[in-house]
Amino acid sequence: MELKQLKREILYRGRVIDLIVDEVEYPSGIKGVREIVHHPGGAVAVPILDDGRVLLVKQLRYPFGNHVLELPAGKLSPGEDPQVCASRELEEETGWLADHWEKLTSIYTSPGFCDEVLHIFLATGLRESPHGHKRGEGEFSMTVHSFLLGEAMSLIEQGEIQDSKTICGLLLVSRRMLWRDR
Amino acid sequence: MELKQLKREILYRGRVIDLIVDEVEYPSGIKGVREIVHHPGGAVAVPILDDGRVLLVKQLRYPFGNHVLELPAGKLSPGEDPQVCASRELEEETGWLADHWEKLTSIYTSPGFCDEVLHIFLATGLRESPHGHKRGEGEFSMTVHSFLLGEAMSLIEQGEIQDSKTICGLLLVSRRMLWRDR
Repeated sequence: MELKQLKREILYRGRVIDLIVDEVEYPSGIKGVREIVHHPGGAVAVPILDDGRVLLVKQLRYPFGNHVLELPAGKLSPGEDPQVCASRELEEETGWLADHWEKLTSIYTSPGFCDEVLHIFLATGLRESPHGHKRGEGEFSMTVHSFLLGEAMSLIEQGEIQDSKTICGLLLVSRRMLWRDR
Repeated sequence: MELKQLKREILYRGRVIDLIVDEVEYPSGIKGVREIVHHPGGAVAVPILDDGRVLLVKQLRYPFGNHVLELPAGKLSPGEDPQVCASRELEEETGWLADHWEKLTSIYTSPGFCDEVLHIFLATGLRESPHGHKRGEGEFSMTVHSFLLGEAMSLIEQGEIQDSKTICGLLLVSRRMLWRDR
């Protein structure tokens, strides 16, 4: 790396994120500051029902004070396999299980200041869990919604779906289906 | 909002981000903590040359200690119009100007803990700026690359492009071109 780390301070260790501030030196000799938000990473499911509909969840997102429509997803527990995490989050948030899992890609949500990586999986062969959903205290306002993939594409184009992992996952699956149908 | 804010602490005011930690009360009466990273937001250009190639930049991303391939983008200055910001960042980072700008969408990069919103624009009618690029100290390692849209799609599918705003912008433009060509 062509950026020299001179000093590191861990300013905050939190529930979800840590804040790290480094003093750095550029190749020119000039000094600067870099702020890093450390996040454990997470996993995302793109759950497609046998009839072609995709399951999304809507929940209160505190930073926006608003409800946001997203793919089911959640944070990785320490050492957790991303596919196991995606499967766990799908069941906890929607009450559905999937028989088939296929990795689509991994994304960096905001690489300028944050090391969060999200692993996105296509989930098919869906069936309802005998246990139903198991939402956490913070997910009290969550609701499940289903859309045809074409409807979801319209919601993206109309700006009704704005979450980046959700746009990435839905567009990747839609693209794949488009080629399959040709 | 069904989540009651009991207390707010601003733990850090930084160059790029601020860290805010709130004590909250859920509808059940249980108390919790919410961490918010405040970011000023930014703007993103999807610059398509007349021959159909897209311009991307590769730069060192400090949180990953690695070079990342991305659409030209940058932070909003206070009060700055997002399209003006996208145009400014395109010229500063690549040395290209665009005659036509069209808003594609706005995305939330990580709505669970961060209020960052990125405004994505399609930029066409490209011509080289007489001034060349004007990169900042932190952009010392930046290089410009051009790809046919089909090549960029392959880079996404192979996991060579992992930045979320870049995947969103490229897939939205590719989808639009696909329909236009039918």
